[in-house]
Amino acid sequence: MVGAGTDRTKISRGGGPAIVLVRPQLAVNIGMCARAMANFGLSDLRLVSPREGWPRTGSLRKGAYAAAAGAVHLLEGAKLYDTLAEAVADLNFVWATTARERGQGKRVELPGNAMPESAARMAAGERHGIMFGPERTGLENDEVATADAIITFPVNPAYASLNLAQAVLLTGYEWNRAATGETLPFQAPDYSPRANREMVLSFFDYLEGELDKNGFFRPPGKAPVMRRNLRNIFHRMEMTEQDVRTLRGALVRLVEGPRKEAKTRKKAKKAEGPEA
Amino acid sequence: MVGAGTDRTKISRGGGPAIVLVRPQLAVNIGMCARAMANFGLSDLRLVSPREGWPRTGSLRKGAYAAAAGAVHLLEGAKLYDTLAEAVADLNFVWATTARERGQGKRVELPGNAMPESAARMAAGERHGIMFGPERTGLENDEVATADAIITFPVNPAYASLNLAQAVLLTGYEWNRAATGETLPFQAPDYSPRANREMVLSFFDYLEGELDKNGFFRPPGKAPVMRRNLRNIFHRMEMTEQDVRTLRGALVRLVEGPRKEAKTRKKAKKAEGPEA
Repeated sequence: MVGAGTDRTKISRGGGPAIVLVRPQLAVNIGMCARAMANFGLSDLRLVSPREGWPRTGSLRKGAYAAAAGAVHLLEGAKLYDTLAEAVADLNFVWATTARERGQGKRVELPGNAMPESAARMAAGERHGIMFGPERTGLENDEVATADAIITFPVNPAYASLNLAQAVLLTGYEWNRAATGETLPFQAPDYSPRANREMVLSFFDYLEGELDKNGFFRPPGKAPVMRRNLRNIFHRMEMTEQDVRTLRGALVRLVEGPRKEAKTRKKAKKAEGPEA
Repeated sequence: MVGAGTDRTKISRGGGPAIVLVRPQLAVNIGMCARAMANFGLSDLRLVSPREGWPRTGSLRKGAYAAAAGAVHLLEGAKLYDTLAEAVADLNFVWATTARERGQGKRVELPGNAMPESAARMAAGERHGIMFGPERTGLENDEVATADAIITFPVNPAYASLNLAQAVLLTGYEWNRAATGETLPFQAPDYSPRANREMVLSFFDYLEGELDKNGFFRPPGKAPVMRRNLRNIFHRMEMTEQDVRTLRGALVRLVEGPRKEAKTRKKAKKAEGPEA
């Protein structure tokens, strides 16, 4: 995981379109799909005739639950169907995901266009679902025919194979974007307000004064341009008050030389003799 | 894989920002990252001090290569570094991916905003990279400090843990969107042009004529509205020429009853006697 950002005190976003896994081959992949769904607030998982069954016990169950990495509520709530027709019976609109053209004359959309459409129609009360085929072969043509339209992923044509959980992940990502407006989970903190002009100009005055004493601005005719260029470098930083204090402190140290107290301390240490 | 859409005759898109995996724990996850990169045309994979080393032989190598599922060129071309500083030395801009706020006052962006920025600057000649931390812990604060800005993922706050390859996948997905304008890998084929008005109206005339003969339009005063409603159902289909031919053929069959030839064939079959 990239950072341990899961916070169980926060309310889980739920809902979204049904994720219909058609004849998934491996229980462990069902677990990975559940995890991807949880990442983006999808909660309606439907399984059509999983090849390994949908084990309630044993090592297959264990593998699926380990892969779900905490999204156990999704596996517990997964609905099991014998046929695709039963799995999509209550849905008003069904997308089929495919990586190839199927010659069925159906509308084809990228997930980034499909999910806003679903979000709008679902907000108006419709139920939508997205079908994903078995890992190795994808959906059969008859299964694609069940759908209203097709979702395909904008992958590198030379390397188009997405695994099942990745296809679910990208769909969930776009669902989340469409349904929630995609807000940042956290913001850069305003740990210090941006410095006002007075503070910034006072810093420049000190810096330029010291540089001037040391003959930095040469030839004198170039001084105005040199000052302006120097100021613009600092302006680009959009300095906070803390930034100005830190930089000014560093500058003072360079100008004034070693701290008095530091010297005292060093001497005191010397008097103590070498370290034990 | 969702459909077997990989086509090795197509030119692989390459390039994109460097993917810098910092102290990745498992070789198999490096393989899965390579696969995710290949899906979206990223090709610059950099490994900083992988915990399992970067094995050239043995079962770890086998696991990584199996997980890469064909993106072997990326693993073969992966660059290995002892330190993060070496890995990012040539880059002009570095993103750190984190799931938590790090109190460093850095700019935070979603991948959907970060990748267009990188695409624009890289088009102008800059080199960009994206750092990803170890699977369990994410990047350390000192590693985040190396970056210019932060990317975070818009995940469900109650379930925020993305696995390493998924984080790479989402970044690659947004890179691809930003860099290529995200085109559909295939279009719904124009297997038949949309029917022109003459063809559609002729179909309506035939349909309504037959319905009228059979007394469908009752009471007669409602006939105009009933016709209009019926036509609108068909208009919503945006029928192709082939659609009109198919529907007209089906209609003829319903109106005229069983096909003559079919009967003849059936009789002929009967004459042959029961099947062997």
